[in-house]
Amino acid sequence: MYLRNAWYVAAWSHELGDELITRTICDQPVLLYRKENGDAVAIGNLCPHRFAPLHMGRKVGDTVQCMYHGMVFGESGACVLNPHRGGVISPAMRVPAYPLIERHGAIWLWTGEAEAADEALLPDYSCYSAPGFAVIRGVMDVAANYELISDNLLDLTHADFLHEGTLSSEAITISKLETLEAGSTVWANRWCPNGDAAPVWGQLMESQLGMKATDPVDHWLYMRWDAPGHLLLDVGITPPGLPRDKGAWVFTGHHLTPVSKDRTLYYWTVVRNHGLDDPAVEAFWQGSIDYAFAVQDKPMIEAQQAALGGRHIDELRPVGIPADVAGAKARRMLARLIAGEARGERARPGSERLDALLARHAASADPVLPVV
Amino acid sequence: MYLRNAWYVAAWSHELGDELITRTICDQPVLLYRKENGDAVAIGNLCPHRFAPLHMGRKVGDTVQCMYHGMVFGESGACVLNPHRGGVISPAMRVPAYPLIERHGAIWLWTGEAEAADEALLPDYSCYSAPGFAVIRGVMDVAANYELISDNLLDLTHADFLHEGTLSSEAITISKLETLEAGSTVWANRWCPNGDAAPVWGQLMESQLGMKATDPVDHWLYMRWDAPGHLLLDVGITPPGLPRDKGAWVFTGHHLTPVSKDRTLYYWTVVRNHGLDDPAVEAFWQGSIDYAFAVQDKPMIEAQQAALGGRHIDELRPVGIPADVAGAKARRMLARLIAGEARGERARPGSERLDALLARHAASADPVLPVV
Amino acid sequence: MYLRNAWYVAAWSHELGDELITRTICDQPVLLYRKENGDAVAIGNLCPHRFAPLHMGRKVGDTVQCMYHGMVFGESGACVLNPHRGGVISPAMRVPAYPLIERHGAIWLWTGEAEAADEALLPDYSCYSAPGFAVIRGVMDVAANYELISDNLLDLTHADFLHEGTLSSEAITISKLETLEAGSTVWANRWCPNGDAAPVWGQLMESQLGMKATDPVDHWLYMRWDAPGHLLLDVGITPPGLPRDKGAWVFTGHHLTPVSKDRTLYYWTVVRNHGLDDPAVEAFWQGSIDYAFAVQDKPMIEAQQAALGGRHIDELRPVGIPADVAGAKARRMLARLIAGEARGERARPGSERLDALLARHAASADPVLPVV
Repeated sequence: MYLRNAWYVAAWSHELGDELITRTICDQPVLLYRKENGDAVAIGNLCPHRFAPLHMGRKVGDTVQCMYHGMVFGESGACVLNPHRGGVISPAMRVPAYPLIERHGAIWLWTGEAEAADEALLPDYSCYSAPGFAVIRGVMDVAANYELISDNLLDLTHADFLHEGTLSSEAITISKLETLEAGSTVWANRWCPNGDAAPVWGQLMESQLGMKATDPVDHWLYMRWDAPGHLLLDVGITPPGLPRDKGAWVFTGHHLTPVSKDRTLYYWTVVRNHGLDDPAVEAFWQGSIDYAFAVQDKPMIEAQQAALGGRHIDELRPVGIPADVAGAKARRMLARLIAGEARGERARPGSERLDALLARHAASADPVLPVV
Repeated sequence: MYLRNAWYVAAWSHELGDELITRTICDQPVLLYRKENGDAVAIGNLCPHRFAPLHMGRKVGDTVQCMYHGMVFGESGACVLNPHRGGVISPAMRVPAYPLIERHGAIWLWTGEAEAADEALLPDYSCYSAPGFAVIRGVMDVAANYELISDNLLDLTHADFLHEGTLSSEAITISKLETLEAGSTVWANRWCPNGDAAPVWGQLMESQLGMKATDPVDHWLYMRWDAPGHLLLDVGITPPGLPRDKGAWVFTGHHLTPVSKDRTLYYWTVVRNHGLDDPAVEAFWQGSIDYAFAVQDKPMIEAQQAALGGRHIDELRPVGIPADVAGAKARRMLARLIAGEARGERARPGSERLDALLARHAASADPVLPVV
Repeated sequence: MYLRNAWYVAAWSHELGDELITRTICDQPVLLYRKENGDAVAIGNLCPHRFAPLHMGRKVGDTVQCMYHGMVFGESGACVLNPHRGGVISPAMRVPAYPLIERHGAIWLWTGEAEAADEALLPDYSCYSAPGFAVIRGVMDVAANYELISDNLLDLTHADFLHEGTLSSEAITISKLETLEAGSTVWANRWCPNGDAAPVWGQLMESQLGMKATDPVDHWLYMRWDAPGHLLLDVGITPPGLPRDKGAWVFTGHHLTPVSKDRTLYYWTVVRNHGLDDPAVEAFWQGSIDYAFAVQDKPMIEAQQAALGGRHIDELRPVGIPADVAGAKARRMLARLIAGEARGERARPGSERLDALLARHAASADPVLPVV
């Protein structure tokens, strides 16, 4: 039901301090903590003795002690101390240990076999650490299956309706959707040259680019999806013909971590190349995202889930439209990967590295699809 | 499980204004709105594209636009506009359309096949529009199966206990219950001549009839049930021997619309021939109904449902008493109708028309059972 | 799933006054009330007519009247009055009647066959009525299976962790656990001579015994379990070598009444031989128990249950430690008793009578296991 051999965002780095925190990821109870050297650790949250949650326990150095009966577990998941008479430790006294990578401000957790954990399968979010960009991060708890959220993100035609008056424009509406599959990546791209900007950009055009909100712009929206649920929208506007770095350039990241089949932790970012130190610009993007995601998208997606009840959407035989193409490609690819995993196949790395893309994009706003 | 070829009250007319409203009727999500000419429309509430609820969308003229991806549906249920590139509309892009009749202040919705929708099957509630009568309407959300509510209404012996001191009297207690079945109608009637009035009538006897609360009265309680869950209580008091229109005459209507097997929207009315423009009389009846239905009946019926859990009452093998007879007739008739429907049989019209009854009753308060 | 031929605490005596009260015991709805002579009665709470709850009715002398349709039931469970026309009472018109014993301030209810109800199977809690002792009683509603609570009580090693700094001591930690099975009783005993007292005792040592909190003590903790879930901890401290009645002697009672498989009413007591009339001592014990049970044990046990979801703990294959031995004995014994009951076997009386134990203990604090 889930892709096991895959990376999921378990937390933003800043969420994990000195305390024990817990997450449910793909129905698995996970405990997260930092060792004394700051390294993050993820192990199963339930003591194998009587299934007390370890997050109700305490850190002891680089280990965690269950506060029900005192068993101590280390980062390998093995029990390293049984404080009871005799102190014998059964080899079965262990919790799962999850491979982790902490990179670009996120803690990425591997839910599959440890020996299959492959850094090359980590999708490229180097833009979170790129010089000349500032990052806002947030997380939403969404009462819906994660694929309903990727459907939403891979079909930006919904902006004309759900985000009418803010994220929609005539130029986007008439643009052509180009989709592409490569490895375990799906792209859904729109290039909208020399047209109107969606209203959300108007304030930035005036304050950041010295333009009028009604001036024509080149506008691009390139959405990348990597299995199982990592999306990156490369989006922005420039005065017509100018390269991306002369405009307002933004990446929005979307990391969909299934809690269960009908609940998702949705980790999001906005990465901007403008007003890096300007609190008004930060507040503008924070507010815009809150409005679009929390006020507009989340209630609609949760209403879809409520309508489905416990059923998979395909059981209701949805009637497709052409705009579904990218979402459908992502759903089929994920289904293939999950089926392949059941046959013992390993996932292949996803898209090209983003640094090449960044370099190319910085030089031009041309409607060049990424080379893959 | 439900009678499909039947009329259910989906809303009071005054509940449906300019806005989209939604109801769940027999487990089906329904959208209600008015066209520009005021006509009410009922269609399925879930867009067949991705099952976004249409009530989160907006009216566009006589149609409704889904605000997720912009599909537009009309009163036939068919998609009439696909705003996406190409604009092709698949014949499958449609929602159910429900036949409606708006009459006597209620919106009646047919859940079965459209071609079987038969106005003759609409039970007669012309008293809601009868000259010389005033109507109060309300609705309660009851966490119980609708047949538990019709059981309650068809056995008025419960007034001696649950409504002790307000709706009960010695004259009712000693009266004989007469039951009658005809078509898909069940009657449960009590005629209580020249006896005491239930205390609820005392205030009206003094203010409306110039009597003392302790004076003897002729008292009648004629309860009519029509499948699947429409009840009408013809009830009142007169000075002994006088015709109904010389007394305090009331109809209470009870329309039980199943939301699901364990939740019901209970639409009720009080229709009175006295104090038509008197706010004190209106407040009296509003308060009496709130007390009897919301404070007394609803908690008891919901407690029954809670005791049943997910089980049908017959699984617990209830022990019957003679007073159950009318409720049992209604349950058996409804079961026969549902079984007949599964074999392709059509329902037959129910009781006699109420106008004949009204005419006859106006002339006399005799214990004449309706001729059917 | 439950032991049926067994006594469960249905309420403390002081909880049952003039009103009807209701309990769910082993998934069965029970009504409790007192007759005019004060005797407690327990019968099924659902009227067999339409399953209205009798606790929404009223007492009429020594009987209870359902306030939906007026059927009246007596302590035998049989309907004794049908107020409806004819008044015939079907022999099926009856609710279950539960044998009761009211003793030592508790109402003990037998869920099995009435003819099997055996007072000899009542575990001995005569300490609740023993001269020279004062009793505090309470009840907690715990969202967990009752065996998770008896696991907790039968393995006091958890005090080192969950009750660290209050109920734990080096002397307890290094003490040897002695377990014993007899009849349907399990003992889990610790004798800790001439060592430190757990911190909870320090205040009492100073105020009640004229000692310093750091003085060495003889400390005993004898936990008795009787099926299906009655526990008694005989616990206390004395100056080394002195008999129990020269020290601070306490019994804590623990009666685990299953509401359902994942919810328990936990009736508890603290019985002390010191500060009998001293409100400060009463407040001290009340506060200590509230802290240990409600703040520390209850959240941990409920977290275990939440981790299990609907599963039995054995489905998750817990990894045992030696400290589990007493809890495991109790679980196995209960499973044997339930299996035996399914084969028609009768339970045998449990432990020795407590009065003999009290007499012996009063004379000595020696680590003598009860003779059984």
